[in-house]
Amino acid sequence: MTHYTELDTPAVLIDLDRTEANLKRAQDAAEKVGIALRPHIKTHKLPYFARRQVDLGAVGITVQKLGEAEVMADAGLTDLLLTFNIIGAAKLKRLKALHDRVTIRVVADSADCVAGLAATFTDATRPLGVFVECDTGMGRCGVQSPAAAVELARKIIAAPGLAFAGLMTYPAAGKYAEAARWLGEARDAFAAAGVDLPAITTGGTPDIWHMDDAARVATEYRPGTYIYMDRSQVAAGAATFDDCALTVLATVVSRPTEGRAIVDAGSKALTSDLLGLVGHGHVVEFPDAKVVGLSEEHGTLDVSACARKPRIGDVIRIIPNHCCPVTNLFDRVNLIRDGELVETVDVAARGRVD
Amino acid sequence: MTHYTELDTPAVLIDLDRTEANLKRAQDAAEKVGIALRPHIKTHKLPYFARRQVDLGAVGITVQKLGEAEVMADAGLTDLLLTFNIIGAAKLKRLKALHDRVTIRVVADSADCVAGLAATFTDATRPLGVFVECDTGMGRCGVQSPAAAVELARKIIAAPGLAFAGLMTYPAAGKYAEAARWLGEARDAFAAAGVDLPAITTGGTPDIWHMDDAARVATEYRPGTYIYMDRSQVAAGAATFDDCALTVLATVVSRPTEGRAIVDAGSKALTSDLLGLVGHGHVVEFPDAKVVGLSEEHGTLDVSACARKPRIGDVIRIIPNHCCPVTNLFDRVNLIRDGELVETVDVAARGRVD
Repeated sequence: MTHYTELDTPAVLIDLDRTEANLKRAQDAAEKVGIALRPHIKTHKLPYFARRQVDLGAVGITVQKLGEAEVMADAGLTDLLLTFNIIGAAKLKRLKALHDRVTIRVVADSADCVAGLAATFTDATRPLGVFVECDTGMGRCGVQSPAAAVELARKIIAAPGLAFAGLMTYPAAGKYAEAARWLGEARDAFAAAGVDLPAITTGGTPDIWHMDDAARVATEYRPGTYIYMDRSQVAAGAATFDDCALTVLATVVSRPTEGRAIVDAGSKALTSDLLGLVGHGHVVEFPDAKVVGLSEEHGTLDVSACARKPRIGDVIRIIPNHCCPVTNLFDRVNLIRDGELVETVDVAARGRVD
Repeated sequence: MTHYTELDTPAVLIDLDRTEANLKRAQDAAEKVGIALRPHIKTHKLPYFARRQVDLGAVGITVQKLGEAEVMADAGLTDLLLTFNIIGAAKLKRLKALHDRVTIRVVADSADCVAGLAATFTDATRPLGVFVECDTGMGRCGVQSPAAAVELARKIIAAPGLAFAGLMTYPAAGKYAEAARWLGEARDAFAAAGVDLPAITTGGTPDIWHMDDAARVATEYRPGTYIYMDRSQVAAGAATFDDCALTVLATVVSRPTEGRAIVDAGSKALTSDLLGLVGHGHVVEFPDAKVVGLSEEHGTLDVSACARKPRIGDVIRIIPNHCCPVTNLFDRVNLIRDGELVETVDVAARGRVD
């Protein structure tokens, strides 16, 4: 038996009981309101948890990159939604190869994107499902109006190798009502145009406990971070620190002043993501400590408010602001139960940026 | 022959002519003012460039983690300075194993750290060189006064397996004069105490062209970023965009509005490091574009100021704010000369966080 405190640092710890509770709570909530769950694997990047999500009732998984889709298909996952515009010959070829062996569907938000897919799949033995991505307030990708969604859907329907799968959005955090209104207007526009709208998929962990609102218009929900939760989700009210399953284990390597402690986890372990927060993480053992600065390999803690101060050699756990990019920085993560190491697993889809 | 525009995106491009010019310029500047150069490999993480730096005249290399030291030792580098406090039994054992096969020296800023080293190396056949790290204004690790530096040096000298190697600092950017003053006072304190001070090592690319100032007190300079340069170094006045050798190649995947373009390089390609800057990078082909937002896989560009707008499918190069963590996000980088791919190399020390 290896206790987590015996692991070399920095390291990522995943509490298995917390992940299981987080997965079940979301699956139960989805079933209660009658919406399908299609978790985004970008948070964990592990076939281990993707399979568990499907076992618990998820209809399939969501991926953001072809590389992630390839890893998950290799691991036996069979129903994938790739929520990214696939552009260019190299990627279209890889998509075609994936489509030949699993159910994979994609998104498009422009005629250019649809044209590339249409040319690639024109002689496919079964059509490629394509969702129209809608910008419901995020200000990222997506068509800008319900009328534009109908117009692009018609282009998909007109392409021999493609099938119109529905509408997809990633709503801005906290703007679930605005997103639902947009999608409701889109549903009306499709009905008025006489175009069948097979599905509406939305997502986001910050508003996961408003899935009942989402379910009034959407048929599918794609949360990612909910499996681990993190400091940003605590700030959004979607979790408590006791729900947070991922921590970065670090060692106190310096105490240069009474108020300062330096740990061996910097931006290469915790990332520089702020997500609107002040500070870079929550220290489990020293909740009054503030992670005030990160350089690549150093984390700087202000410990002046701590009654008991960390000492050199102390091992601490930090809940990061954003857990998803953290799992992209470590080749392996450590699965923990009751403080003991259960298994160290490779982060199979880490670094699959293309 | 493969032109860089044919590579799948996102990808890291390294312009070999620019790296060579950057390396030579710094080596020449160091030789001119009579200071030894010991480049930090955390920027490139490649034995390929570490060897080139030594071939050009560097006295050895600097690493930040034991894992980086192990990779470089395996690749044949023989003189390493590890500028990080080594704490804990597991790491001390790895340090001892490295010391058995290469010249490796470390730093310490506390009696606790020195005690761990002393206990590990007490029966070493040759002593371990230990620098005292000094906090000359960075507010990170380091003893807080010249007197404390002398005191800690005495502890190192008193340990049978250790040898006092000198003083080490990483000065805050732009505060080279302050750091030099601190180190000058320390030199005086050592002289007054009758303690031999073998070397003073300092560094930092932001102030690299003030090496003449550094050379008045320091004997060695440890720049890292100078090999590639980046947007933060341009902002610091240490480089121009034409000196920047590392770019992230990205594809425009969406043009949702007249003023917005989305590329397939987000924080998992460019990192979220701001380093005090506004925006997340400089777009070579569209210098009037602003990289206004990053999510993990999307970069959001405001292209409203561009006379010619990017189109879907366009391939662009982005100079990141901070090149060092970018090379930690990619398994491979592409070495380019005159626009053509020379070689794709594994980033050997990527992810070596412990």
